[in-house]
Amino acid sequence: MFDKFRDECGIFGIYGHPEAANVAYLGLYALQHRGQESAGIATSDGSTVHVHREMGLVADVFDRTALKKLTGTNAIGHVRYSTAGSSQLKNAQPLSASFAGGSLAVAHNGNLTNAQVLRDDLEARGSIFHSTSDTEVILHLLALSKQPTLLDRVVEALSVVKGAYSLLMLTRDTLIAARDSYGFRPLALGTLGDAPVLSSESCAFDLIEAKFVREVEPGEIVVVDDRGVRAFKPFPQTPRAFCVFELIYFARPDSSIFGRNVYAVRKELGRELAREHPAQADVVIPIPDSGVSAAIGYAQESGLPFETGLIRNHYVGRTFIEPRQSIRHFGVKVKLNAVEEVIHGRRVVVVDDSIVRGTTIRKLVKMIRHAGAREVHVRISSPPTTGPCFYGIDTPTRAELIASSHNVAEIRKYILADSLGYLSVEGLRRAVRAARGEFCDACFTGNYPVKFPGPSSQLPLFREG
Amino acid sequence: MFDKFRDECGIFGIYGHPEAANVAYLGLYALQHRGQESAGIATSDGSTVHVHREMGLVADVFDRTALKKLTGTNAIGHVRYSTAGSSQLKNAQPLSASFAGGSLAVAHNGNLTNAQVLRDDLEARGSIFHSTSDTEVILHLLALSKQPTLLDRVVEALSVVKGAYSLLMLTRDTLIAARDSYGFRPLALGTLGDAPVLSSESCAFDLIEAKFVREVEPGEIVVVDDRGVRAFKPFPQTPRAFCVFELIYFARPDSSIFGRNVYAVRKELGRELAREHPAQADVVIPIPDSGVSAAIGYAQESGLPFETGLIRNHYVGRTFIEPRQSIRHFGVKVKLNAVEEVIHGRRVVVVDDSIVRGTTIRKLVKMIRHAGAREVHVRISSPPTTGPCFYGIDTPTRAELIASSHNVAEIRKYILADSLGYLSVEGLRRAVRAARGEFCDACFTGNYPVKFPGPSSQLPLFREG
Amino acid sequence: MFDKFRDECGIFGIYGHPEAANVAYLGLYALQHRGQESAGIATSDGSTVHVHREMGLVADVFDRTALKKLTGTNAIGHVRYSTAGSSQLKNAQPLSASFAGGSLAVAHNGNLTNAQVLRDDLEARGSIFHSTSDTEVILHLLALSKQPTLLDRVVEALSVVKGAYSLLMLTRDTLIAARDSYGFRPLALGTLGDAPVLSSESCAFDLIEAKFVREVEPGEIVVVDDRGVRAFKPFPQTPRAFCVFELIYFARPDSSIFGRNVYAVRKELGRELAREHPAQADVVIPIPDSGVSAAIGYAQESGLPFETGLIRNHYVGRTFIEPRQSIRHFGVKVKLNAVEEVIHGRRVVVVDDSIVRGTTIRKLVKMIRHAGAREVHVRISSPPTTGPCFYGIDTPTRAELIASSHNVAEIRKYILADSLGYLSVEGLRRAVRAARGEFCDACFTGNYPVKFPGPSSQLPLFREG
Amino acid sequence: MFDKFRDECGIFGIYGHPEAANVAYLGLYALQHRGQESAGIATSDGSTVHVHREMGLVADVFDRTALKKLTGTNAIGHVRYSTAGSSQLKNAQPLSASFAGGSLAVAHNGNLTNAQVLRDDLEARGSIFHSTSDTEVILHLLALSKQPTLLDRVVEALSVVKGAYSLLMLTRDTLIAARDSYGFRPLALGTLGDAPVLSSESCAFDLIEAKFVREVEPGEIVVVDDRGVRAFKPFPQTPRAFCVFELIYFARPDSSIFGRNVYAVRKELGRELAREHPAQADVVIPIPDSGVSAAIGYAQESGLPFETGLIRNHYVGRTFIEPRQSIRHFGVKVKLNAVEEVIHGRRVVVVDDSIVRGTTIRKLVKMIRHAGAREVHVRISSPPTTGPCFYGIDTPTRAELIASSHNVAEIRKYILADSLGYLSVEGLRRAVRAARGEFCDACFTGNYPVKFPGPSSQLPLFREG
Repeated sequence: MFDKFRDECGIFGIYGHPEAANVAYLGLYALQHRGQESAGIATSDGSTVHVHREMGLVADVFDRTALKKLTGTNAIGHVRYSTAGSSQLKNAQPLSASFAGGSLAVAHNGNLTNAQVLRDDLEARGSIFHSTSDTEVILHLLALSKQPTLLDRVVEALSVVKGAYSLLMLTRDTLIAARDSYGFRPLALGTLGDAPVLSSESCAFDLIEAKFVREVEPGEIVVVDDRGVRAFKPFPQTPRAFCVFELIYFARPDSSIFGRNVYAVRKELGRELAREHPAQADVVIPIPDSGVSAAIGYAQESGLPFETGLIRNHYVGRTFIEPRQSIRHFGVKVKLNAVEEVIHGRRVVVVDDSIVRGTTIRKLVKMIRHAGAREVHVRISSPPTTGPCFYGIDTPTRAELIASSHNVAEIRKYILADSLGYLSVEGLRRAVRAARGEFCDACFTGNYPVKFPGPSSQLPLFREG
Repeated sequence: MFDKFRDECGIFGIYGHPEAANVAYLGLYALQHRGQESAGIATSDGSTVHVHREMGLVADVFDRTALKKLTGTNAIGHVRYSTAGSSQLKNAQPLSASFAGGSLAVAHNGNLTNAQVLRDDLEARGSIFHSTSDTEVILHLLALSKQPTLLDRVVEALSVVKGAYSLLMLTRDTLIAARDSYGFRPLALGTLGDAPVLSSESCAFDLIEAKFVREVEPGEIVVVDDRGVRAFKPFPQTPRAFCVFELIYFARPDSSIFGRNVYAVRKELGRELAREHPAQADVVIPIPDSGVSAAIGYAQESGLPFETGLIRNHYVGRTFIEPRQSIRHFGVKVKLNAVEEVIHGRRVVVVDDSIVRGTTIRKLVKMIRHAGAREVHVRISSPPTTGPCFYGIDTPTRAELIASSHNVAEIRKYILADSLGYLSVEGLRRAVRAARGEFCDACFTGNYPVKFPGPSSQLPLFREG
Repeated sequence: MFDKFRDECGIFGIYGHPEAANVAYLGLYALQHRGQESAGIATSDGSTVHVHREMGLVADVFDRTALKKLTGTNAIGHVRYSTAGSSQLKNAQPLSASFAGGSLAVAHNGNLTNAQVLRDDLEARGSIFHSTSDTEVILHLLALSKQPTLLDRVVEALSVVKGAYSLLMLTRDTLIAARDSYGFRPLALGTLGDAPVLSSESCAFDLIEAKFVREVEPGEIVVVDDRGVRAFKPFPQTPRAFCVFELIYFARPDSSIFGRNVYAVRKELGRELAREHPAQADVVIPIPDSGVSAAIGYAQESGLPFETGLIRNHYVGRTFIEPRQSIRHFGVKVKLNAVEEVIHGRRVVVVDDSIVRGTTIRKLVKMIRHAGAREVHVRISSPPTTGPCFYGIDTPTRAELIASSHNVAEIRKYILADSLGYLSVEGLRRAVRAARGEFCDACFTGNYPVKFPGPSSQLPLFREG
Repeated sequence: MFDKFRDECGIFGIYGHPEAANVAYLGLYALQHRGQESAGIATSDGSTVHVHREMGLVADVFDRTALKKLTGTNAIGHVRYSTAGSSQLKNAQPLSASFAGGSLAVAHNGNLTNAQVLRDDLEARGSIFHSTSDTEVILHLLALSKQPTLLDRVVEALSVVKGAYSLLMLTRDTLIAARDSYGFRPLALGTLGDAPVLSSESCAFDLIEAKFVREVEPGEIVVVDDRGVRAFKPFPQTPRAFCVFELIYFARPDSSIFGRNVYAVRKELGRELAREHPAQADVVIPIPDSGVSAAIGYAQESGLPFETGLIRNHYVGRTFIEPRQSIRHFGVKVKLNAVEEVIHGRRVVVVDDSIVRGTTIRKLVKMIRHAGAREVHVRISSPPTTGPCFYGIDTPTRAELIASSHNVAEIRKYILADSLGYLSVEGLRRAVRAARGEFCDACFTGNYPVKFPGPSSQLPLFREG
């Protein structure tokens, strides 16, 4: 609802647990912040793959009846956010199909940069597509591979796709996890008793009381079957490119991803921000909830008191009706309200994680001024977002990103702030304690690790002899 | 879902506005925290009273079609929480009926202490009841009154009821607000342009951009009609007894009620608590969201850093399915998770507003210890709750209140804390800056301002001659 | 959907059966043709009365969960059709309320002619009304009565109401049935094993395999409790006035009411019609399903072959969408289609039970001509309907009844038929084998047995001394 | 709900009409008797194919919003009944996919006898399947064809499939109809104004007021595009094998299929039956509605009176709850009830179209005896059904067909009839006026025109060189 980048998916898997579907349900519940438009679970019981997926939140998509039908000890699950155009059931995941190798379900977090090229090639060969999702391309590649084993099929299929993916694949008796060699999207491995579990974020492990083991490494394929867990690294190594925005905004503060605790990183972003952009002010308030962790860091570093100057209405739902014109423009006000006692007569530092279009922060600055603030100093715990993401994040087009065409002074003026400070790219890197090149920061810097869209190339899968 | 006292209702009214139903919808939206089980709006257009009420949240109960049918320039609305037994549509409000004076709708926040006595008397006289709510008693008393004007009927009816009420009554052309002489429940008067508005809390005024004028005074009846706003005080004066728990927990932090800003009071409760019960600790964390304001006060007073050590899952819904036995006990975990980075190796002060049964805080202390806390010091920003409420708050029976039968040492042991500190009654009074007797603190002190249940008395209404 | 009079209600009751709610459900299922807008069942278990009622068909209103909650060995049920204005849940039956005598549920088939008068009197005395249905008046009268027993209360209440009623009343331990002294609406008594059952029509007994015992007599009150079945006749005798339209159209052909089998009566109506209005024709076809029985009689008497020249679409539902203008006017065509093979080149006798506005039959005559009929002779198995009903049937206003302002020649012309014959009033009486005055035929003759609306009279209940 | 064979599908198409989706909606409405489990419409507007399909009846699946989204002047639609196992949304039709040639939707009535063989071949080549329906095989074959035009692709694809099909295919600008060379399932061509329309049965033309032109001939492919209607016969000729059961039971009486009016054929079946199996009886009654037409024929030929001795409850829905054990076995009784007046003391001829398992007719004979019949003579207007159908009809397995293992005497005994007469195969042929071999009567005679399942054969499509 706010003017934010959006994560596109969360995935979860478990193998060899008597209540696989129930555990997957809980895992997806903990990953709900990664996608709220559709949810699905596929299970397998040694012979068949069962799938249930629908539009809606995890708790709405699954009731006892639906979970009971998802028999079997193995499960993968998926939550999805998607752009308006493709928000349809047929794109909900896990996608499933039967092919010569049996039944297969796939859950995918990421974005292939050569999906259209592959799709065109596949259609030219006679393939038919039922959805518009990248994931169906992967299904076709797996089915078309002539390799003898599922692992070999996966290796062959993934060798032709480019871009970002953390993938879970389930057959009647095997669960395979794969992560692209850049490692754009997170994927962690844990254990629940003896059962291996996989999750986009570690917070899902906490809920089910599973133990975190390690992250699935970039470029790694993990095969889980009755023989146990085996790991493979069949692809040439590439630089790493962990998505830094997962740390800035997407992941839950209680998760650890890319080897770092998210809350601690965000507080450190706030501290860096305070050092780079101090303010002569009386109080620090966050934009709830995106700015909370950074605001605490900013307050601690600056010595200014932290206060909750904006209160969130916890009952905001998606069905809210905008009343008629005369009383409209409730976009922000139905979600947040200012606490006059905190703000009146004060010089206020307002902390948030990022500015996309600038429309929301502009309304909030107005609201804060209306509550009597003497000065409003906006501080952003990341650099200006100047470019879209091609690796699994839903971002507006470049033209809609205010920082792509306006400098900081212009943005300050637009959002009606007395001052505006963004964290620098260097400050960002310091805060995440990143080696150069370890993270993808293309949305700030324009350094895209994988080109998009690329020219078509002959795919080895399709060579006949 | 948490182990908390619960407010039973929120009410909202507006008179003489072209979009009365839409404004009431927004007002109820802002008051949703006061009741989530049913919602309703009644409007009048000079000739007829229209009512729409259903089980569910405001945003689910009303869609465009429902709002469009609620024609007219006057509206009252109601949100309701209710105990399990009476959670039925027939008890949803506003209740409406036709009687000799025309059509009438009533929205009621509070609890009558002599409702059963009145009901028995009314039934003995031949009245029939369709609901089990106190409010239907008021409808009958209004209908049975032989007084010539609606105001006189209201005065006569309210002269026989005892207990807590903030009431809104709507006829085809008049809106009447009334508040009992103790003033248990809040009720504020404002204006939206020229239109008078009434609301349980001022936060609803903020959302619709109405101006706060004053509180409806205890014992006051406010009549709003085409002649304007007129106030009456027909009842003998009594001591005041504002519900202190509204300040401690129920009201939204951005509201002002009983002449005080809620957030500021809660921070002061936290400061008092820090002075009364300091702790040798490293960090202060709140139970979200009930403990946040007090925790900020505690941290500021104690000089300890404030951190969000527990993260809330924002997608918790009422439809969550508890999985089977082997993976159960998710009551708290689906809502909150600990941030190990904040807690591990630390001595942690955990701040909340109150303890009811102690079951939730016990699980949270366990969770915090599991995340590696060295010590856990629980601090509660109100005194031990030893008695139930009879004035409009849903509380468990006395036997279920842990503090009614256990001393602080025993409670500390049960909740597994290293130390436990409750704010004293004196500290509470200091923090709310209350004159002696201004507030009802019966749930802490047992000083009930109005007796319940009382013996039946002959009601003047029913005397024939 | 067709242009027909409509019955307003069906009622069913059972006492002392271990599956009372289930049996009532089946009984209502068999009575569904008497009302399709709402359905409800009230049960009692010796201490409490439970009610479930909703808008919709019986099979939609009740699922296993709803039936399971309706505990107890006694039940009454109701199906309702209602005119648009009052088609609301609050008017669905059984209506229930608590009063000094405990809880009470009432199911009512009929129409009180002095309901408004009584309502005005009751409101003047201070009563409040939650619905607009006549039945709530009865509830009030029962509650206001000072008589010592329920039976005495019922007698006192019914002594002041005028008009048509077949009533079932249920308390925690008693079921009372009552029928007005004219006997407008049917009501039969039967037994299912040892359990007494009551039903608007005998077809409900067939479904549950109950045995028909007798009809509840006009003016009779039947009390069913643990002492057994007792009958009373407390009211002065009046002439009888069985609704003849129940036999002509409303009741199911497999029912017996007013001592006659409905199918046999309808065939006899068709035979009389053939004698009164023979036709030079080749084939007799009915309008399905209202004209089937009479058409068979007509065919047998005339010696002409009976054919199903119009085929009914069995999947017509209430949700059918009329497409846009260019392809509209599907009112009749989505329900019926002509069989060209039967009609082409033939002289066709078309039989139906009645003509209300004439719009439907006009379209059907067109359809039959379009299918190639050489001549179309319309025969109606009842006299012209010239007046509305005030005794429980939903009829259009007099002005809308084509026969109230047009003679047979004019109607023939309007409906585009080559000839038109209505059964005479004398033929009707012969066919139903009725003594003079035994039936109400006011809609044909204007002889209304009970005046409506009548002037107000002082009600004995309300006299104070 | 009755013990009947079931048709599996109905299809409808229109090209070049401004309200294509609305017309298709009406067409499917008229074909609802051919399938009640799912419904779907695909439209095309010159550039895109839009599809909406859901489980449920036509009137429930489509509302105004859904129809509005189905833009374009071309449409195909489908209603489906399916066996329990595959009753899933993913099998609902029209199936659609994108492939190299663009988007394509397919609606299919029939059953391929070599579907599994083709599917295995396709999977071996790397194809993936999302459904279990035969129709997806056709989509793959169309996509894999290397032919330059859609028509050529269709010809190539259909040259490898075997069995029964009437097919409609829709691309962005072309509608193609195809019927297998045996002509198992009906398919008619008509015009609505200038727009060509196609329908399983002519009754859909009547509803939309389209003109019947001719049947699509067996083995014919009809291409409809902006150039008009062109017909092709690319396949070698085979004998014809029109499904005789369409005339006996499936099709609506008001339809004409295979050059015959259905009602007239059924009456003639009844006449033949009366000649072959007369009865010493007093009255002829049909099993509604399947036996009505034949019963009229039987009555006319025998001179016995036709009566409606069984009355149908028109409100039987799919949600009916069977109550608990003590009052069960409502299978037949909730749908039909006997009219005692017609049956009591009479010798009754009961006419139906067929007996499948015999369970329903057995209950009905019991019901008729319970209503007092002196004798019950069952007459069936088709021969004993001894074999299942492989060409698009849902039949039980051979073992479940009572006539596959019992002779007429044994069946008579089982169904408790005094006598039982089936129409002979010769009588059936006389009644349908069929040339030898014109109709498929395999379910009676075991003469299956196309073998099933056949051995796999190398498909020309897949030859690489």
